[in-house]
Amino acid sequence: MKLTWHRKNLHLKHPFNIASVQRQQTTEKQVLLARIEHKDHIGWGEASPVSYYHQSKESAEAVFQQAASMLGNDPFAFDAILDPLFEKFPDQPAAISAIDIALHDLAGHLLGIPVWKWFGLDAKRIPITSFTIGIDTLDVIRQKVHEAADYPILKVKVGTDNDDAILTAIRDVAPDKTLRVDANGGWNDQNVLERCTHLAKKYRLEFIEQPTPAGHHDALPAVLHANPCPIVADESCLGPDDVLGLVTAFDGINIKLSKCGGIRRALRMIHTARAAGLKIMLGCMVETSVGISAAAQLAPLVDWIDLDGHMLLADDPFEGIGGNHGKLTLNDKPGLGLSEK
Amino acid sequence: MKLTWHRKNLHLKHPFNIASVQRQQTTEKQVLLARIEHKDHIGWGEASPVSYYHQSKESAEAVFQQAASMLGNDPFAFDAILDPLFEKFPDQPAAISAIDIALHDLAGHLLGIPVWKWFGLDAKRIPITSFTIGIDTLDVIRQKVHEAADYPILKVKVGTDNDDAILTAIRDVAPDKTLRVDANGGWNDQNVLERCTHLAKKYRLEFIEQPTPAGHHDALPAVLHANPCPIVADESCLGPDDVLGLVTAFDGINIKLSKCGGIRRALRMIHTARAAGLKIMLGCMVETSVGISAAAQLAPLVDWIDLDGHMLLADDPFEGIGGNHGKLTLNDKPGLGLSEK
Repeated sequence: MKLTWHRKNLHLKHPFNIASVQRQQTTEKQVLLARIEHKDHIGWGEASPVSYYHQSKESAEAVFQQAASMLGNDPFAFDAILDPLFEKFPDQPAAISAIDIALHDLAGHLLGIPVWKWFGLDAKRIPITSFTIGIDTLDVIRQKVHEAADYPILKVKVGTDNDDAILTAIRDVAPDKTLRVDANGGWNDQNVLERCTHLAKKYRLEFIEQPTPAGHHDALPAVLHANPCPIVADESCLGPDDVLGLVTAFDGINIKLSKCGGIRRALRMIHTARAAGLKIMLGCMVETSVGISAAAQLAPLVDWIDLDGHMLLADDPFEGIGGNHGKLTLNDKPGLGLSEK
Repeated sequence: MKLTWHRKNLHLKHPFNIASVQRQQTTEKQVLLARIEHKDHIGWGEASPVSYYHQSKESAEAVFQQAASMLGNDPFAFDAILDPLFEKFPDQPAAISAIDIALHDLAGHLLGIPVWKWFGLDAKRIPITSFTIGIDTLDVIRQKVHEAADYPILKVKVGTDNDDAILTAIRDVAPDKTLRVDANGGWNDQNVLERCTHLAKKYRLEFIEQPTPAGHHDALPAVLHANPCPIVADESCLGPDDVLGLVTAFDGINIKLSKCGGIRRALRMIHTARAAGLKIMLGCMVETSVGISAAAQLAPLVDWIDLDGHMLLADDPFEGIGGNHGKLTLNDKPGLGLSEK
């Protein structure tokens, strides 16, 4: 098998802010695509390394450089290929995820069936995805909510000093939509109970993601006890080994392929979380349809999906699971079901 | 898809006793085979219903009768087929397991690859299986151990009044073999700590299975604390929902397809147990190579296997994963890798 990779500069439809990088706007997005060739078949993968998890495009490319000679020639040898990579590069799940994704796409092409079918899943069970509204001025937020008229579920970045004003603006424009929020760890032990209780009730929130920073979970059992709405772990839940430690502090987990290391580990997390009674969400970074379609293959197994990363791109180079009106479609094409545009 | 089934009378190489049916010998074994046909391909499955779990050949056949019209025509629609069966027949996992196994065999044939490969596993990681020595007179036990010279790991049924004599006889003949024991719930809160500590030390046991009856776990945390050897749950661990509740009383779990409902649920149990730090064993009933080869497909994921059920049969109608010298071989044939003899 031959592994190659390249960066690609893409553009966002709208500038994007989040709590952790407030006041810093992005309009461009450089993505990192991987490609595994084997016997006239191609598998695509995508890495979304983020500095928050101490990864970068450079560190991911360094993994690809070494992994290229470690792949062997059997695309089905997932464990024999991936386990040594996780051992050698334990802190680089985003790069390994790209290889895992490309292998799934490749193997799906070799088998002639989509990954979701190969996994025995029921494509009809895919949930509706939320559409993310980034932090911005109230006027721009209102405008974004108008533009998102087609999407029945909105996910809003909160954890700012301005949460009430933001959510009021959103509820003005969209009084009846399902609304979930992501605080990106913006609250703390002192204010988290009040914040969650107040916002969940006043704005009828479906769930709140990552209210306090990763590892700062002391106040969360009291939040769970008050039960304002489900509380979901994102930055607190990286891989399979984290899941069971979260049951006293969270109602659910947000799984992202780049965070956990790919489809294979995501599946382990799903089974573990389900056994522990945790709700399960599939999330994403700003990614092309490669990364998003990969995550979507597992979507019939989860409760909530937030797989809109590709919809934020003005020039996604791939077509995959689509997303009009929040409806992702697991198609019948082999592998991840991708077509290059 | 067309589901059919039939009973088949087979013979045991040796009469067989276990603690729960002491003094009752079996020399015959009637197995229950299921068969799913689809587009010139056949998938084989096997049900091993046992009265201990309130199932019988009759109850399994009643499930087949109704399931036959519920299968639809897509062999890959595992969740869409199996979930309604588990909902409709929650107390009949053995029958559903046979359907799950037959679907995996069938889908493997349609894909043209073995199930272990389809799952991305590394066939080389399969552990050596133990060979079971049933309860019998000391002379017969010594004879059986002699006859099992080829097998490097023995599993011995204990939980009788005669455990020391049995284990002494075995250690006389096989002083250096790896020895694991299965008490089948034969001990109780009062004697379990002494029994485990004494036997594990004196006879150098690899692990002890099911020391007390299912649900009678009160004394087990103290056994875990004394740490004589790993303590493994069998009758205490039926399906995926049981796994996490066992971590304070057991070091590991014994997964059997007929007990949990098939390959798909077994995989969920494996991922959950691994995340919980539990050791994992794959076990079996007295089954043909259909049931045993099905379990063996998952063997690269577990720590211990006890998949000797087919070796106890004098006239196994299938050839599958073999088992000479305790070495099962995951072959490259499609599905479960079976050939009819």
